[in-house]
Parts: sequence; structure tokens; C-alpha cells
Amino acid sequence: MACSLDPNENLAKAEYRIREAAGKGAQIICVQELFRSQYFCQTEDIGTFDLAETIPGPTTESFTRLAAELDVVIVGSIFERRMAGVFHNTATIIDAGGELLGIYRKMHIPDDPRFYEKYYFTPGDLGFRCFDTKYARIAALICWDQWYPEGARLAALGGAQILFYPTAIGFHESDAAEAATQHNAWETIQRSHAIANGVYVAAVNRVGHEGPTGDGLQFWGGSFVSDPQGRMLAKAGDGEETLVVECDPRVIESVRRNWPFLRDRRIDAYAPIVSRVID
Amino acid sequence: MACSLDPNENLAKAEYRIREAAGKGAQIICVQELFRSQYFCQTEDIGTFDLAETIPGPTTESFTRLAAELDVVIVGSIFERRMAGVFHNTATIIDAGGELLGIYRKMHIPDDPRFYEKYYFTPGDLGFRCFDTKYARIAALICWDQWYPEGARLAALGGAQILFYPTAIGFHESDAAEAATQHNAWETIQRSHAIANGVYVAAVNRVGHEGPTGDGLQFWGGSFVSDPQGRMLAKAGDGEETLVVECDPRVIESVRRNWPFLRDRRIDAYAPIVSRVID
Repeated sequence: MACSLDPNENLAKAEYRIREAAGKGAQIICVQELFRSQYFCQTEDIGTFDLAETIPGPTTESFTRLAAELDVVIVGSIFERRMAGVFHNTATIIDAGGELLGIYRKMHIPDDPRFYEKYYFTPGDLGFRCFDTKYARIAALICWDQWYPEGARLAALGGAQILFYPTAIGFHESDAAEAATQHNAWETIQRSHAIANGVYVAAVNRVGHEGPTGDGLQFWGGSFVSDPQGRMLAKAGDGEETLVVECDPRVIESVRRNWPFLRDRRIDAYAPIVSRVID
Repeated sequence: MACSLDPNENLAKAEYRIREAAGKGAQIICVQELFRSQYFCQTEDIGTFDLAETIPGPTTESFTRLAAELDVVIVGSIFERRMAGVFHNTATIIDAGGELLGIYRKMHIPDDPRFYEKYYFTPGDLGFRCFDTKYARIAALICWDQWYPEGARLAALGGAQILFYPTAIGFHESDAAEAATQHNAWETIQRSHAIANGVYVAAVNRVGHEGPTGDGLQFWGGSFVSDPQGRMLAKAGDGEETLVVECDPRVIESVRRNWPFLRDRRIDAYAPIVSRVID
């Protein structure tokens, strides 16, 4: 969805869309990254920290109520104020019935022109986590995490059946020529996580233009779900859209029997992966 | 290329094609996996071990001469007899000038109906390696290694600029319906290695039909080179073909500045990747 400058309006819109998805039969519903505000990391502004909230807090209270009412799992995304001076980019996993199962704090924090996230977010300290929800065992990873095979692998080794990626990715207007390449790479690497691990991947991205006209970010949308063989089951356009996609755990079982990649991992040889560079 | 039942004929054909590539300006030339024979792993046959050779041995001698004569790097692929009872699926890296820089022994060994590699090949014990050739720092990984982000990552952390994947992948005739999905996944995951690591990836695959008519393997060819953003620079069809593709190291520098994935890896959190499963 597109976001306005009013956090309450954005929450109301998200709630409306969660109801819409549930009405269409969705069981696990994921919102986009930082859906309560525009993507504030375009600038470094000390006042922006006022947007942060605690967990539990207003957003989890709202989603908890909704999850109980609709009997759906909700993967939320919150600018978390953990304590004075420590803020995170956090996903909340609320089970059907309304229990807050836990949180995931974005582990990989980007910093690029117009994406000044290192200013706002302390890197996550909870590692990569899985959650047993009513409908599936899932993991949430967030945006920049998308580019790291390690995060997807660790979530899959933990038993995740679906990886959710709340996202806010777009391009600066001056980079429009590069946008198609970036968008394609973004899809490719996430589909590859599905393939490498035999899991479903759901990427949920922001849409719309934010920032000054002619000098802002255009979020490309294109939310999608990939099956465990990397096939696109559904893909949104660049406007607001609610996708409801069936993910069958029997497909995971079958794909992993046919493509037994997890059987042959060389765990005796991977230790140097914790090196920055192998000199 | 397609392979006959005569190892000497296959070597002669490979030499012819290496000359052809060098004539077109190629500097680093990679042959397909186990190019000296048909893909013998379709059956488990004790006599087949007679095809194995030592390193150095006849194939490296031939490639060493050729590399010296043509001033090209040659990435070879050999069914290696290391000692009685220990055989490997091995890549040989011969520098321009003719020096055998070293070898890589296939780390991930598949075993599927018609791909009985665990019968023939002891898993590699050399880890993932990089080689400074005259023209680039490269790594060779082999076929099934393709499906493992860890191998690509470790090679890239070691400084590889191009990952070469000698390959023999195809489909059993009864699986033709699945072939397009598999082929697409195969491309996708290798392009994702290029993206995740900011490297070039060159996949070099066998073509042709081998085995009994109506009950054999159809190798799908489709050799390709991906740039560090996952873009297909060139792609072969399903017949014999020699691709010559320019890989510019300045592109690696530029892509990694624009997509600084390696900067933000959470090496403090990846250690559990050496687990089989995270229970």
C-alpha cells in the first residue's frame, strides 16, 4: 500500500486491508515494512524518532485485537523504541487468537543515499527466528535481509515453511534506468532463497512516490509469493494490491524429496562463512 | 558439447573447441563437467572406475600444453583417481603458460535416480578455493555445488571474481514436464550467487542425449554467463556452442559500491549455519 504522513490513517488502511485479506480466506497476513509512516529514512532527522513506539504498544494492540477477531496470523512491522537511544526495525508475529508470539529485529541494516537506516536502527540482536503459528511455522526477515542467503538459510534450518519479507524498496527518480535491473535482481535472489531451502517466500513491498517531486523515492511494489521451486505463484503490480496465495506444506515435503539439497550440505566446511573476508 | 563413448574423441573435441574459443579472444576457458566421457553416473558399474585418471595425468598434460601454446587459462574437469578406493570429481585450474595452479574437488555430491554420484565420488576435502590466474582470480565449483549459497559465498569471500561451474545437468525423459521448472531454478540460483556476492558466474553445461532411447538423460545445455547484477550476458541453446563473454573487473568494483551487501554481513550471527538442522 501507499502511505500518507498520518500514522493513524496508515494503520486504519492496513486494518482495512487485513480485513479484506481475511475475507478472501487469508490465514497469515503480512504488512509491508514500516507501514505506519512514510519511509522516513530518506533523511536523517532527529525528530523522526518520535514515530517510534514500544512493543507491546499501539500497533501490536491493534493487531492483537484484529488477529483474535479474524482468527488470522499477522506479521507486523514497527519502528521499535526499545529504550532511550536504542531503536530497531522490528517485525511482530501475532498468532491467530491474538497472542504476540515474538519479534524479529532486522539484522542487516542498509545505508545508502536516501536509505539512511544505520542512523535510525540498531542492528537486531535476536538472530534469525522461527515462530509456530496456528497455520504454519514461519520466519520474518526484513527488506535488506533479502540480499543475504545466510538469513534465509538459518530461518529454513530452524524449520520455517514460509519466509516473509516486509519491505520498502524503490528507486530514486534519477536511477529509473537502473530500476528494472534492481527489481529483477530483487526477485531473483528471493526466489533463490525459496529454491535453495525448499520454502515459500513472500515479499511484501511498499508502493507509491514519497519525497519531493522529482527528487523522491518511487517504491516499486511488485509483492510476490514464490513456491519452493522458485516459481512465481502471484505477483502484484506497482499499485496497492492485496494478494491471497495458497501455500501447501505438502509441496515442501515433495520438493525437498526431489531436490534433496539439505541432505548434502557440507557443514564441516562452512565455518569460514563467519569471516568478513577470507584473506 | 555432446560426448561420445570414446574418451579420446571427447578430448580431441574439447581441444578443438578450446582453440576455437581462444581464437575468438577467450582468456579463461572452462569445459563442462566430466567432458571426457558420457555421464557414467546414470548407472552404478564397477568397471566404470577404469575411466578415472590421476592428476597430473593425460588430461592435465594435454591442457597444460594447450594453455602454454594459446596463453589461456583452462578450467578442466576430471574423474580423478586419487588412490585405490578414493575417487573424486575434480576441477583442474591451469594457468596461461601451462602451470597447474591447483585443483578443486567437488564438495557437494548428489545422488538421485540416474545421478548416482555418491557411488563414484568421495566428497571433496579441499574446501572452496580461489586461484590467481593470469587474467582473473577465479574459483571453480562443480554442478551440484550450484545449489548451495555457502559455496558461492566462500569462494567470493576468498576474492574470486568469476565463479565457474562445470556442469552435467539434464532431465530424464519421463520428467520432461518438470524440465522447464528445473532449468529456470538452475539459472535463478546461479544468477543469485552473482547478485549476492557481486561476482560473475559462468555455468558450462553438457548437451545431448545419453543412455537408452526413451529411457536416457537429455542434457539441457543452456550454458550462460551472469554479470554481478544477475543479468544474463550470454546464453547458449541446447546444442553445442562456444560462448565468449567479456567480464570486466571494474563492474565488480562498481556494483559492490552500489550494492554494498558484503559490508553489512552479520558474521556475529551466522555460526549456526554449520548445523545440519537447528532444532
